[in-house]
Amino acid sequence: MELSELSRGLDTIWVVLTAAMILLMEGGFALLEAGFVRQKNAVSIIMKVFVDIAFGALVFYFFGFAIMYGKDVSGLFGTSGFLLSGDLSHIVLNISHETYWLFQCAFVIAVISIVSGAVAERIHFRAYILLTIAMTGLIYPLAGHWVWSTGGWLGKLGMIDFAGSAVIHALGGFAALAAAIFVGPRIGKFSPDGKVNIVSPSNLPLASVGAFILWFGWFGFNAGSTLSATNTSIGHIAVTTMLSAAAGGATCILFTMFRYKKADPPMVINGSLAGLVGITAGCAFVSDGAAIFIGAICGIMMVLATEYMESKKIDDPVGAFAVHGISGSIGTLALGLFAKPELAGEVGQGYYGLFYGGGLKLLGVQALGLVTVSVWGFVFTWGVLWLIRKIMPVRVSKDEELIGLDVGIHGVPAYSYDTDFLDVDRLKSGN
Amino acid sequence: MELSELSRGLDTIWVVLTAAMILLMEGGFALLEAGFVRQKNAVSIIMKVFVDIAFGALVFYFFGFAIMYGKDVSGLFGTSGFLLSGDLSHIVLNISHETYWLFQCAFVIAVISIVSGAVAERIHFRAYILLTIAMTGLIYPLAGHWVWSTGGWLGKLGMIDFAGSAVIHALGGFAALAAAIFVGPRIGKFSPDGKVNIVSPSNLPLASVGAFILWFGWFGFNAGSTLSATNTSIGHIAVTTMLSAAAGGATCILFTMFRYKKADPPMVINGSLAGLVGITAGCAFVSDGAAIFIGAICGIMMVLATEYMESKKIDDPVGAFAVHGISGSIGTLALGLFAKPELAGEVGQGYYGLFYGGGLKLLGVQALGLVTVSVWGFVFTWGVLWLIRKIMPVRVSKDEELIGLDVGIHGVPAYSYDTDFLDVDRLKSGN
Amino acid sequence: MELSELSRGLDTIWVVLTAAMILLMEGGFALLEAGFVRQKNAVSIIMKVFVDIAFGALVFYFFGFAIMYGKDVSGLFGTSGFLLSGDLSHIVLNISHETYWLFQCAFVIAVISIVSGAVAERIHFRAYILLTIAMTGLIYPLAGHWVWSTGGWLGKLGMIDFAGSAVIHALGGFAALAAAIFVGPRIGKFSPDGKVNIVSPSNLPLASVGAFILWFGWFGFNAGSTLSATNTSIGHIAVTTMLSAAAGGATCILFTMFRYKKADPPMVINGSLAGLVGITAGCAFVSDGAAIFIGAICGIMMVLATEYMESKKIDDPVGAFAVHGISGSIGTLALGLFAKPELAGEVGQGYYGLFYGGGLKLLGVQALGLVTVSVWGFVFTWGVLWLIRKIMPVRVSKDEELIGLDVGIHGVPAYSYDTDFLDVDRLKSGN
Repeated sequence: MELSELSRGLDTIWVVLTAAMILLMEGGFALLEAGFVRQKNAVSIIMKVFVDIAFGALVFYFFGFAIMYGKDVSGLFGTSGFLLSGDLSHIVLNISHETYWLFQCAFVIAVISIVSGAVAERIHFRAYILLTIAMTGLIYPLAGHWVWSTGGWLGKLGMIDFAGSAVIHALGGFAALAAAIFVGPRIGKFSPDGKVNIVSPSNLPLASVGAFILWFGWFGFNAGSTLSATNTSIGHIAVTTMLSAAAGGATCILFTMFRYKKADPPMVINGSLAGLVGITAGCAFVSDGAAIFIGAICGIMMVLATEYMESKKIDDPVGAFAVHGISGSIGTLALGLFAKPELAGEVGQGYYGLFYGGGLKLLGVQALGLVTVSVWGFVFTWGVLWLIRKIMPVRVSKDEELIGLDVGIHGVPAYSYDTDFLDVDRLKSGN
Repeated sequence: MELSELSRGLDTIWVVLTAAMILLMEGGFALLEAGFVRQKNAVSIIMKVFVDIAFGALVFYFFGFAIMYGKDVSGLFGTSGFLLSGDLSHIVLNISHETYWLFQCAFVIAVISIVSGAVAERIHFRAYILLTIAMTGLIYPLAGHWVWSTGGWLGKLGMIDFAGSAVIHALGGFAALAAAIFVGPRIGKFSPDGKVNIVSPSNLPLASVGAFILWFGWFGFNAGSTLSATNTSIGHIAVTTMLSAAAGGATCILFTMFRYKKADPPMVINGSLAGLVGITAGCAFVSDGAAIFIGAICGIMMVLATEYMESKKIDDPVGAFAVHGISGSIGTLALGLFAKPELAGEVGQGYYGLFYGGGLKLLGVQALGLVTVSVWGFVFTWGVLWLIRKIMPVRVSKDEELIGLDVGIHGVPAYSYDTDFLDVDRLKSGN
Repeated sequence: MELSELSRGLDTIWVVLTAAMILLMEGGFALLEAGFVRQKNAVSIIMKVFVDIAFGALVFYFFGFAIMYGKDVSGLFGTSGFLLSGDLSHIVLNISHETYWLFQCAFVIAVISIVSGAVAERIHFRAYILLTIAMTGLIYPLAGHWVWSTGGWLGKLGMIDFAGSAVIHALGGFAALAAAIFVGPRIGKFSPDGKVNIVSPSNLPLASVGAFILWFGWFGFNAGSTLSATNTSIGHIAVTTMLSAAAGGATCILFTMFRYKKADPPMVINGSLAGLVGITAGCAFVSDGAAIFIGAICGIMMVLATEYMESKKIDDPVGAFAVHGISGSIGTLALGLFAKPELAGEVGQGYYGLFYGGGLKLLGVQALGLVTVSVWGFVFTWGVLWLIRKIMPVRVSKDEELIGLDVGIHGVPAYSYDTDFLDVDRLKSGN
């Protein structure tokens, strides 16, 4: 047994275990979304999560990974690594390329899962499959290339995004926003007289445990992004992740008690997630105190953004944009303020935060990167949906929406209270 | 700190963490099965999972492990290691025998959990306890000895089954088939006029998240089977596991859209699991492409097998045989075709796959092993149930079945919508 | 790469991963409690778990950790480490102080989560926040200091509590008992004529999977408490944990079949947890056989304690005292009988178990420690609630309790069966 062999084994199990934790987040997304939507659409949203993980993994294997991490052309896209073969010699890690692929695959699946919530209860299943292929094969891989690959132009400018507040969450969030606007609000969400109607989430216990599973997976997401078990930041990353999530949750508890005279369960659930999203870019580079501050701000802004979305008649059933788009943006920009030189000064161009005397350089490049990634996510998603609409309906029919997508599209309700066998023909008719 | 000490620690935490992941799969089985059965039997099926984990662990500690991994007699059974004591010097690992036991214990519990689904909604609880004792103490340990122990006759012939497509899943699946046939179909499943009636699963969100938890645990199952963190196959195993599961899920989405004109949620859930089952034997030995192919075939065959079971009037409420029996068989045989010489050529007798020029040797021994293990699982399970029926009812009474096993056998419903306190006497009467 | 660097990385990922597993237990608590309470209070109890994790983490960061693990004063409390800064040089570990904090933070959150179940369905949310702050900032940190910190007086006397049967579970359980008595029984639980009324748990599948998640997390709890991946006890700890849990579950299955003529699902769920609680003190120090014995006793005593509590008209909706208080006490004392000299003789004062010839020394100090911690937990919790009542209601109003805390306090039901949009004003009115 050589030391190097041991080191490689250690890094490998670290990345495989954290990748598995991130993949478990799909179970978290499924619960969160199924709990937030109406009962008649609970299994249809979970089917979309299956599309995310099944199609996402295959597409990323066939070409997404190559475009994202393949041999760079002009800082814009990769060109090798289709089916994990070809020249990947520029990726020099202490783990195998396959292990690296698995971790990145878990990331791409998370991105598309963000979008699924925003279009819940009305997007057509076939259209969603095509959107998933575009997102996991092109939209995310290209943006990811710019920031994270060897040679990507934003990375070379000095942009920092440790585990993806921008690349994963802002991109996913703005893509979700585009998709939510494109497909339009659910029937009945906004009355003709301008009134906003709400629906009680169908299953808040499921949504809550979805959040706890996501929280668990986030330790894999952030700490695993070191890709090395001997990275001395791991403990710090885990602590800032924990503190920011706690701050997001606690702030939402207090803020909604103040604002609505009650601690609002859906907001508290999303507030914790907002804290997690916000710290994802900076978990390795900011202080504990900054992590608490970032989490708290993200929690409050998530509440306000949710209200703003409703006031603008944009229907995002699970708050995907408020959680991922807004907090991802805050987290990306916060690095420009809070990145400590002794932590962040060795990455990118060596820029660090304004509050530590780093000037506006890091803040500027973070803002540039954020705008680039967000606009890209919004515009490209819109364009893909526009193209899809040329060949098939993007939205279910009115009847399917009213009866619910579970029975309308998938032929089976999420919950069945019948305790006896059903006549097949009756069931298939959806009654 | 010596290098060897570090290496031992590394392997130990790898095996303990992956064992814990596999044990969490019991939560996955509980959700999957509770979600698939009717509401009136949702907690009774979970109680069986508690039997699996509680009795299974104790039985395997008292004697199952000894029979499986104890000192070999004639390649047939083990004779030492009862209560983890006695001579186990033939087991030479970099982890302690206790750590090794924990991992194997997680496996045996998975096997019996496969069976639980096939007999759901009608087997008697006491009979199920006895079946669990037989399965975890004898049926599985003996078959496992033949393939996996030092000196087992199938292992010596060159059979390869990395993490148990045959030993766990084909065995468990064929045992499940025997049990499903033995106890007979649920009342009302098949009409006298030959019509097949179906029931909507009671809770598809729970079933779905059960599948995601199982998927997570499978990384422990397959990659943990290396028993060593420095095994250089770990990354490859995790990737083939992911790809096969994704292929199983994606194929089922497309295949059911083609066949039923709708992506069928229960089939998609089981399709992902079928992909996982199918790759379990070969995860370390086949290419990524073969993994995708195996997963896709398993997904399609699971759908067809489910239909075939119904046409033959065999009632398997959760599709245990279609998922575990069929895909376990496919996975075991697929090794005979796809095992790459550079990956599999160093295990067993050095045989490898037909498609790589290995001839029929590996395929033949895989087929022999599969038939042996499957017939063994079927026949012994049938025999055990036959013996149990001599002393107690194997199936609940008609009244208990109609009222549901939750209230009928366990005296409490799985879900209660009453929001006020109940009169105890009323509750105990089950009304 | 140096050996020491590798060793530090290995220990760090071990502690971070096990800490994440313990934090996932909050999801387990949420499911367990939401499943056990009535439907009208299912989300309110989960909101308390969010308070536990969000406020608990922040409070423990700001001052709980300092009081618990800071520089010792007279064996009574710590004085450094507020906001994780200041002199912590007395904590000498192979992991960073931040990593250590995260693990301890996961512990403190578990303690308060124990209490949440006992006061479910009637404590006021604001009062609960204050109780959480007191528990995570003072009550637990002080008791924990006495047993676990460098210089704590109980630790110096030789008390052993490996992962917290006393410090976590007995303390939490007796605090839960005090809180349950203080807030009084739920309306309708005990009839004026002395009759005990029961309510069917609202969602036993959720409660069950909560138990499985807790079981999974417990491997992190117990094995992670080594704080070092090269600790040679890890395998043994994991096995005793598994066996004790299995024994607790199996015993409850058999005992309730004998006592109630049915395997009682809530008792089986709690029996497994009782086994886990009971082995937490001694997992590293007792034999496998003793672990099985401890688990079995804890299972039976949990059933009897639950009955006793009802006979005494104490209303503990989820059985928090019976599970954590009783089994925590048994586990703490059992060490005085079963601690093996070769395992436990090197910690504390070198005392070991009565049954191994260690005399009454260890048993005596364990009893002293248990009484101290339990009385402390009970009295201080009572006092805090008494103080809180001076400034705000500790219990919700009768109307809020009858309508349920979900709608009454948080304005939203846990489960919504409406499939259409609601008029906001109607929803806010709680109808």
